Amino acid sequence: MATATLSKDMLEAHPDPAQLDRDALARCIDECLACAGSCISCADADLAEEEVADLRRCIRLCLDCADVCDATRNVLSRQTEYVAELARAQVSACRESCAACAEECEGHADHHEHCRICADQCRRCEEACSAVLEAIG
Amino acid sequence: MATATLSKDMLEAHPDPAQLDRDALARCIDECLACAGSCISCADADLAEEEVADLRRCIRLCLDCADVCDATRNVLSRQTEYVAELARAQVSACRESCAACAEECEGHADHHEHCRICADQCRRCEEACSAVLEAIG
Amino acid sequence: MATATLSKDMLEAHPDPAQLDRDALARCIDECLACAGSCISCADADLAEEEVADLRRCIRLCLDCADVCDATRNVLSRQTEYVAELARAQVSACRESCAACAEECEGHADHHEHCRICADQCRRCEEACSAVLEAIG
Amino acid sequence: MATATLSKDMLEAHPDPAQLDRDALARCIDECLACAGSCISCADADLAEEEVADLRRCIRLCLDCADVCDATRNVLSRQTEYVAELARAQVSACRESCAACAEECEGHADHHEHCRICADQCRRCEEACSAVLEAIG
Repeated sequence: MATATLSKDMLEAHPDPAQLDRDALARCIDECLACAGSCISCADADLAEEEVADLRRCIRLCLDCADVCDATRNVLSRQTEYVAELARAQVSACRESCAACAEECEGHADHHEHCRICADQCRRCEEACSAVLEAIG
Repeated sequence: MATATLSKDMLEAHPDPAQLDRDALARCIDECLACAGSCISCADADLAEEEVADLRRCIRLCLDCADVCDATRNVLSRQTEYVAELARAQVSACRESCAACAEECEGHADHHEHCRICADQCRRCEEACSAVLEAIG
Repeated sequence: MATATLSKDMLEAHPDPAQLDRDALARCIDECLACAGSCISCADADLAEEEVADLRRCIRLCLDCADVCDATRNVLSRQTEYVAELARAQVSACRESCAACAEECEGHADHHEHCRICADQCRRCEEACSAVLEAIG
Repeated sequence: MATATLSKDMLEAHPDPAQLDRDALARCIDECLACAGSCISCADADLAEEEVADLRRCIRLCLDCADVCDATRNVLSRQTEYVAELARAQVSACRESCAACAEECEGHADHHEHCRICADQCRRCEEACSAVLEAIG
């Protein structure tokens, strides 16, 4: 499995793709996939930490970010009858959510490797969202 | 089951709820729940119609709307460590998505009862999103 | 909004519905909708409780149950090209998940109203899954 | 981004992981991630094909498979307070869903590259589910 290749290949195989920068799109779909995964895992790892009470905000933001990334992945993956306003609004929400989650995870990165990994992934997804928003215009 | 009561009761039972108009919040959670359901069903009914080729846009928008409503339901249901910017961005995307889906379904409402029901539900959810956005400020 | 009516109405409006007991189906879709909602809310309320460390299992099972209920709701809502094996497997997973979550929440029902409400909802969904499994045969 | 590494790294970083073969687990999480993505894309590409009416079953099974893979990814990613019965039931549903979707997509693989890619991905996910089921015992 190599999701990076898979998403790009699926976009290439579409009979009627949206007129959008395909590299930016494939990258954002892949980062959303990865970010949903890292956020689900980070929330669960937080929950098992001794100081779980200090990680409430991290858990909440990770859960939100996973949900928002999943929705964004689906909206961006669909090429048929693309609607720019909808894509723009959902990707904006995703950028917001990744930024908030990254900031929170960064505050725990020195103590928890899962927060360090998750913060990095959220920042990558945030950047990929910005690039897609630029492509949407 | 009466989800309208359930969502409100769950908000009342939360030990540390967000400072947001609880009626607007419960209503929006319930409309997102119902709207995701009607959109999944409408996309599937479209798919079984003889003129499925003319319903591509309806199917795509219903699928998007279901995904966006599910994410919004989850973000709004979480009261712990509420972040206004994130809620605002996701509810805005939801309002956008409900408006686009309602408009499309309304165009088929005379021919398909499932589109008529779904359009009505999307409009209710769009209004509930607007009310929550006003409450968030 | 009255989701109970909505799900039934959408099933009635489908041009080519699956040959399955429609009342059992509509009830299970509605219970899955409500159960996903109560589980997301209960996990979040647990997280805000002072003794969050004693509620780890409850949070984890509520999050799983919400995810499984959402998937089950979608699989059951789709009537086009119904596949009995797939529906049976997913509804079985949902019954399992509701039973596990109900049992855990029942253990906290005396101390937390959100656990009491969620346990009741999980039991209703578990029963609705059993009824659909009987209908599938 | 390399989700294969990410999932493994997140499992390694968990403070209290489930006692399950970590390689089988990470592989299944990654295949579920990739499979949800390919199924969402394949359903959407089907929808844009001229002969969409002949692809109804493919669309339906792809949508189901995406939903089931997402739920399975989340259940398997969570290590805290692992419940074997729940994991087993959900992974079984996922294996069922991947097998059904693979079989359908294989029937269109000669005509549609997106179906060929999706069929391959579903088979990989089906195998990964089998390996996890063996690990669960």
